[in-house]
Amino acid sequence: MTKNSVIGIDLGGTKIYTALASLSGEIIAEVKVSTQSALGVTGVQQNIIWTVEQVQIKAGSKDQVRAVGIGVPGPLNVNEGVVYQAPNLGWREVPIKQILEKALKLPVYIENDANLAAIGEHLRGAGVGVRDLIYVAVGTGIGGGLILNGQIYHGAGFGAGELGHMTIEPDGRPCNCGNKGCLETLASGSAMVQKALDLVKNGQGQSFLTAAQGEPQKISSYLIAQLAAAGDKEALSILEAAGIALGIGLANVINLLNPSLVILGGGALKVGRPYWEAMEKEVSRRALQAAWRQVRLIPAGLGDRSGLFGAIALACQNETPDVSRRTS
Amino acid sequence: MTKNSVIGIDLGGTKIYTALASLSGEIIAEVKVSTQSALGVTGVQQNIIWTVEQVQIKAGSKDQVRAVGIGVPGPLNVNEGVVYQAPNLGWREVPIKQILEKALKLPVYIENDANLAAIGEHLRGAGVGVRDLIYVAVGTGIGGGLILNGQIYHGAGFGAGELGHMTIEPDGRPCNCGNKGCLETLASGSAMVQKALDLVKNGQGQSFLTAAQGEPQKISSYLIAQLAAAGDKEALSILEAAGIALGIGLANVINLLNPSLVILGGGALKVGRPYWEAMEKEVSRRALQAAWRQVRLIPAGLGDRSGLFGAIALACQNETPDVSRRTS
Repeated sequence: MTKNSVIGIDLGGTKIYTALASLSGEIIAEVKVSTQSALGVTGVQQNIIWTVEQVQIKAGSKDQVRAVGIGVPGPLNVNEGVVYQAPNLGWREVPIKQILEKALKLPVYIENDANLAAIGEHLRGAGVGVRDLIYVAVGTGIGGGLILNGQIYHGAGFGAGELGHMTIEPDGRPCNCGNKGCLETLASGSAMVQKALDLVKNGQGQSFLTAAQGEPQKISSYLIAQLAAAGDKEALSILEAAGIALGIGLANVINLLNPSLVILGGGALKVGRPYWEAMEKEVSRRALQAAWRQVRLIPAGLGDRSGLFGAIALACQNETPDVSRRTS
Repeated sequence: MTKNSVIGIDLGGTKIYTALASLSGEIIAEVKVSTQSALGVTGVQQNIIWTVEQVQIKAGSKDQVRAVGIGVPGPLNVNEGVVYQAPNLGWREVPIKQILEKALKLPVYIENDANLAAIGEHLRGAGVGVRDLIYVAVGTGIGGGLILNGQIYHGAGFGAGELGHMTIEPDGRPCNCGNKGCLETLASGSAMVQKALDLVKNGQGQSFLTAAQGEPQKISSYLIAQLAAAGDKEALSILEAAGIALGIGLANVINLLNPSLVILGGGALKVGRPYWEAMEKEVSRRALQAAWRQVRLIPAGLGDRSGLFGAIALACQNETPDVSRRTS
């Protein structure tokens, strides 16, 4: 029987998004569950395996899967299949390829999640046919994937694309990475929330506290966005400051890499227009004129499926149907 | 008669450095003259042609040249052979390939000078065998060339590598490019001179004025370096501040591109150890740990010939000896 499907998995700190797809990348069945990272590596592994079984049951194709591609949020070694560190999962040195291959009895390929989102957008989304593009994921943190000369660029140790840790304010707020004033501390979803909390702490930002029913821990970037949309000036100024910081970071990347496209994805983008407009204005002010003329800034074309389609492509690329197998 | 040599030209704002070399890249004869950019495109063109004739005379090989490679300091279109802008030469939209091909009756290939320095270091200098490296030229300005996946990375419009215009201080000094707080305004040779002039203007920095014999326009980065070496605290602090700014910029590039090597060249590096040490310490503080462990920072291996060897390689690559020509 010909194995004519693959499985793609987008493993995030919050959700596991898994799909069964044809070898040409069309999704046949998909399932999304909570990651439950508090359960540890074994618990997350079991959740992953469960999603794999579910999409196979949904598709009615238990024996037809050729390979699995999985995106993991953190630095990793693609060849060895080891995740060095995934802070949002609490992982360190996890040989996820080996673990899943043993459990699933299928070839498993791993890649950084932002890289897979870049690949997904390049193959099926907003970046089809573009040779040099940057994918930027703006969520709790900020990550990136670089498609250069038509292929994903990994760097010397599979670590390329970490634009969230670019210094924007040399004496700024400490970042989890050990540096100060990183883009991530200024422009991410959590940075916006932190700014609101700072205001509340200083006796300002009463509207945030009211909207969060008096519980600061309920302040989210979406809540800030709602207030901004309703005309709240403090909320608007948080979105704009974050957008300006993102614009500085993107101008730096655009000057350095001269891409023709920057694709932005991730949950924090949903805060809306003031953030995007402040970002775009700042890029136009700071990027070199020639580089600015040559680049477009656009939202992801695949929504929250960029990484999922990248994971499917990863499985397909490594296990493309070859004639000898087909005819045997 | 077999054409068994090429000519490489490193065209700078100050000097034209030209060499005749074998097809395997060995320099046979070289000559260096003043650019005299004040003479305009035609004057510089005549100086270039003169150097080409001189190296041929020196090598006694008038009829053996196969091709010419030339590096130009500014954004350009490699395919069309047009220099968009070379501020240090006062050039705008100069079809230098066409001009030189007509005058020299030889195929001419052009490339950005920092890119050629990166290529030169990659082929014969400090970066031999390295897949992912960044070349940084620190002189009057700051430029860069990126070797990614073993080849020069141009970007969408041949503009990649402009790390001198990365924002380091969002509200910093205006840069010629239109942006504020660019790396170039903080870490280049001219930035160091500007800092000394600022001190003098404010009634400080008497040692600079004394060393420059009372003439502020004689303050150079070399003079600042000499004072620093003699223990002058203001001079030392200028070198260190510039080194710190360079370190921030390099940490950003290292986080984004995860290279295994950063090669630094250019005249301003000659200011000495305090600059280099401040730079290296700042990179170690700010780069992501994994990226920092994987990278080395070293001076150019070819001294002021990095760009020249790159220009020779450019001519050789485009005109490699093929069997049909050799045997005919």
